[in-house]
Amino acid sequence: MTVSHISTPDLTDLAQHTRIAARSLAALPTADRNRAIASIAQALEAAAPQILAANAADCEAAIAAGLAKPLYERLKLDATKLAGVIAGVRDVERLPDPVGTVQIHRELDQGLVMTRITCPLGVLGVIFESRPDALVQIASLAVKSGNGVILKGGREAVRSCEALTQAIHQGLEAAGIDLAVVQLLTTREETVALLQLDQYVDLIIPRGSNAFVRFVQQNTTIPVLGHADGICHLYVDRAADVEQAVAIAVDAKTNYPSACNAIETLLVHEAIAPQFLQQAIPALQAQRVELRTDARTCAIAAAQGVTLATATAADWATEYSDLILAVKLVDSVEEAIAHINTYGSRHTEAIVTADAQTAKTFMAQVDAAGVFHNCSTRFSDGFRYGFGAEVGISTQKMPPRGPVGLEGLVTYQYQVVGQGHIAATYSGDQAKAFTHRDL
Amino acid sequence: MTVSHISTPDLTDLAQHTRIAARSLAALPTADRNRAIASIAQALEAAAPQILAANAADCEAAIAAGLAKPLYERLKLDATKLAGVIAGVRDVERLPDPVGTVQIHRELDQGLVMTRITCPLGVLGVIFESRPDALVQIASLAVKSGNGVILKGGREAVRSCEALTQAIHQGLEAAGIDLAVVQLLTTREETVALLQLDQYVDLIIPRGSNAFVRFVQQNTTIPVLGHADGICHLYVDRAADVEQAVAIAVDAKTNYPSACNAIETLLVHEAIAPQFLQQAIPALQAQRVELRTDARTCAIAAAQGVTLATATAADWATEYSDLILAVKLVDSVEEAIAHINTYGSRHTEAIVTADAQTAKTFMAQVDAAGVFHNCSTRFSDGFRYGFGAEVGISTQKMPPRGPVGLEGLVTYQYQVVGQGHIAATYSGDQAKAFTHRDL
Repeated sequence: MTVSHISTPDLTDLAQHTRIAARSLAALPTADRNRAIASIAQALEAAAPQILAANAADCEAAIAAGLAKPLYERLKLDATKLAGVIAGVRDVERLPDPVGTVQIHRELDQGLVMTRITCPLGVLGVIFESRPDALVQIASLAVKSGNGVILKGGREAVRSCEALTQAIHQGLEAAGIDLAVVQLLTTREETVALLQLDQYVDLIIPRGSNAFVRFVQQNTTIPVLGHADGICHLYVDRAADVEQAVAIAVDAKTNYPSACNAIETLLVHEAIAPQFLQQAIPALQAQRVELRTDARTCAIAAAQGVTLATATAADWATEYSDLILAVKLVDSVEEAIAHINTYGSRHTEAIVTADAQTAKTFMAQVDAAGVFHNCSTRFSDGFRYGFGAEVGISTQKMPPRGPVGLEGLVTYQYQVVGQGHIAATYSGDQAKAFTHRDL
Repeated sequence: MTVSHISTPDLTDLAQHTRIAARSLAALPTADRNRAIASIAQALEAAAPQILAANAADCEAAIAAGLAKPLYERLKLDATKLAGVIAGVRDVERLPDPVGTVQIHRELDQGLVMTRITCPLGVLGVIFESRPDALVQIASLAVKSGNGVILKGGREAVRSCEALTQAIHQGLEAAGIDLAVVQLLTTREETVALLQLDQYVDLIIPRGSNAFVRFVQQNTTIPVLGHADGICHLYVDRAADVEQAVAIAVDAKTNYPSACNAIETLLVHEAIAPQFLQQAIPALQAQRVELRTDARTCAIAAAQGVTLATATAADWATEYSDLILAVKLVDSVEEAIAHINTYGSRHTEAIVTADAQTAKTFMAQVDAAGVFHNCSTRFSDGFRYGFGAEVGISTQKMPPRGPVGLEGLVTYQYQVVGQGHIAATYSGDQAKAFTHRDL
């Protein structure tokens, strides 16, 4: 069994095939889909030597090509990491089935019943940079939710992706599932072609740099689950507990600086600024955080004997993804809200305050998928929310929004069952009334 | 108070103003938003003479311009119809508030609580042809759901739209609501500009012809709630109750032929075709339905002494919106499903059969927002589903899908409240576990 290389004109056929295969998968009971996932985990275990060898070859080529260190780190798959990936597949097997959940069950009239029930989206298009582990995770989530998936990994991970897909196909075959449910693309041309397949692909999930996600969003009419930027703020209110505020600021910036839910800008109420900065500046600098500040913050720091860099207008709109933090004084919660609604990327925004009314105003007026009070923005995460899995984080306004679990891979359908009911019965002079009784 | 005419470059300012006004509206308690709706109803009643005069002027101009009769019918607003429109506003007042519904309430750890709660989308862009009554309905639904709305009515209804908006503004003013919550645009250039405002408008709702909706869908990156086509099918299975099937076919075609949930094609299992057609053809012809049939249907009809027109390939892909019905024989439920998944517009698809297994196969494999068994496709409707209001019908795959009620005008937000909680506590060697306990 080999993973075939597909030329662009064949992509429509491939996607149609995936669509049909996914429809059969969707019709299977939960236990059968779970069995397929268990079978995939087993096949991955059996193929571990081949997978690690393929990854070693990718890594060797990456070193020769001078791949940037962070990309290399994400590419590398050792025995421990692979075991973790396979354990993740078994976790997916144990998640509740997102398909078949009844959301509305209503009698419209005697013998006429409407049911709104969750069902798979159909076909997912997933495009990612480097990380071969992402391929396995998303393929198992797709099978779990009854969807087909067309995967496109990074060029630097092509051997790893092929070895992993081959193992996944072996697992599917052993479970009697059509292999077309999981397809792998390997060329950049296919990525562009994939984005045009709005008739056959229902959702695009891009996993990569901001620029990459933005490219995807701007070049497809297929819905995209993702976020380009993660410019999150922490607002330290005049009524903040200073020690709490310092601890949250340090955590939100330094716990994982390249995460999308790390903060990029700290907004500080002027009334608490001298007191807060006296503790916050040394605490952040102790963690090697570079501070870029507005003139007023700069002056307060100077009065405290610290010289800080000056922020430019561009700083307020920058996601550093690094140990850099912009700091700005504001005169009111309203000014903080206005700044956030101007520069924020609608991801996660937090306030530290002991004033319940101010917190309420902040949470009602800030436009973001997550609004947090007296805790770190880093909690904005599918696993931390208890979703069991995270498909992506969306900063769009319509649901699914914020961290998206398996729920984001299903939609719903209205099923109406009657006994010969016709609409004419319910209109005109003799119109019968609907009962609209929830069952 | 007059409704100002806005030139295109000002549209960004206008939308920003609406956004800010909507944020204040969203922060109001349910009772205040309901009071604003009551006030709108009152103002519309008080302004009835002016509204009817403005509409009469529109109608006069429409007659002079030779407006097509169906458009004229939708434009015309007499005292009875206006009273109905105002009664509709009071109905909206009585609907449950879609804002503030708690969807998830979960303790992540002691003192750290996550709440997923519904909130308004922000700003709606609504573009409609003719129907001034649609303006009132959507404006009251927007106020109910805490959204701002930018309305663009048809050119032929401009006087009516201005008179209605003026009354709505009077109602908002009396309730102390910022008038910018409801804005009216009047030129075609503004429609195009509105579709570009992806930073300020969260959802576009087009109400008009298929071509118009398709134009909107293809010219904006803002999510669109709507459907271009409504090509619905009825499949009469070999195990159908013939009388039931005939009654449903007649209802689904003739109850309201121009509705999007009326059927355009009838698929008939060959085994039941002679018996079914013998009753269905006279029943449909008695309602003046023109039948366009494939060769096999034609032959059966001919054997029964009836000459029918022949369908061309184009018929399978046409929404007639008229008393015309295409008829095609199929050899199996699988063939019916394949035909529907090729030509259907994913709106509403129905099967008539006494065979539960066949019905199950059909409902699982047909890709549509609504899949119906032994009842008319005409039940696919927000009011008939008991939603109290219908914002639109969506044929996209992602929710909201199918007939969309007030629920379609809200999204959700994650609120997390802690007591100084930081993420570092939950990682590393000493990692604390989350409790993930639903409250």
